[in-house]
Amino acid sequence: MRKIHYCVAMSLDGYIAGPNGEYDWIIDDPEIDMAADFARFDAALVGRKTFEMMVRENRTEVPGLDVIVFSRTLRQSDYPNVTIVAEKQKEMIEALRKKPGKEILIWGGELFRSLLEDGLVGILDIGVIPVLLGGGIPLLPTRAAQKRIELISHKIYKSGIVGLQYAVK
Amino acid sequence: MRKIHYCVAMSLDGYIAGPNGEYDWIIDDPEIDMAADFARFDAALVGRKTFEMMVRENRTEVPGLDVIVFSRTLRQSDYPNVTIVAEKQKEMIEALRKKPGKEILIWGGELFRSLLEDGLVGILDIGVIPVLLGGGIPLLPTRAAQKRIELISHKIYKSGIVGLQYAVK
Repeated sequence: MRKIHYCVAMSLDGYIAGPNGEYDWIIDDPEIDMAADFARFDAALVGRKTFEMMVRENRTEVPGLDVIVFSRTLRQSDYPNVTIVAEKQKEMIEALRKKPGKEILIWGGELFRSLLEDGLVGILDIGVIPVLLGGGIPLLPTRAAQKRIELISHKIYKSGIVGLQYAVK
Repeated sequence: MRKIHYCVAMSLDGYIAGPNGEYDWIIDDPEIDMAADFARFDAALVGRKTFEMMVRENRTEVPGLDVIVFSRTLRQSDYPNVTIVAEKQKEMIEALRKKPGKEILIWGGELFRSLLEDGLVGILDIGVIPVLLGGGIPLLPTRAAQKRIELISHKIYKSGIVGLQYAVK
């Protein structure tokens, strides 16, 4: 079965974006090989809000990735380059995991929470940025259920970024 | 000058206690030598709420540590074993830092935020526990100011706890 990963940069105090969605605190670290990281995946599961941001920024097509968007309101005919899934999200994802292929990404904090609750998230890949934001969008929208996780690997970058990979139990 | 440390266990999603103050998610790790960690310090700066919890639990006397409590309402005569500081908190701490001695601890999240804003916190010692709490008391009460921090050391424990030490800039 293919694994579903949530990969995200986070401040030490647990925020994935600033209070107004700011990303300017995320260090651009040349030691992190984004292309190699990306090559492990061939599909991205995208939440509705995140997809609308991708539409605004005109980056709905992602080379090498099947983009699968969960939304009850968006119309497939408006977005021919992606797959819109309106219902049976869990069944669709379980079927996708059984198909041969690479690993699968999640884009979007609300979708992450929903898939975590459904037991579908396999791996958390967190890049802890050396900053305290003091407020913003939390890793996990409150209040979510408590989950034990297991540290499976780590990497310390020269920039001070701490890469932590956890398996979700 | 002596350094002021904030040492705390934190869930991966940035909480230092559960929604009702729970600590049961913190792993008791025999690999962590609490006594040796403690021996680096000879004074603790304590917030009022944290001190009231210490009073309830009858543990206001801490061998080897001068306990200094910041409160405008508590009376010194009621707590002869500790030092109550009612005003000029910053000046008192700056004077304390100049005296010879070991490093200084902070106990209490609100006091941490206040001292961080005053530029008095030198070191953050975070033990990242492998759990997602999904809600609770955040590392830093929102909304605090953004602060750059610098990773100065790390230790990975067999239990999956990630010890991260940062200098505050």
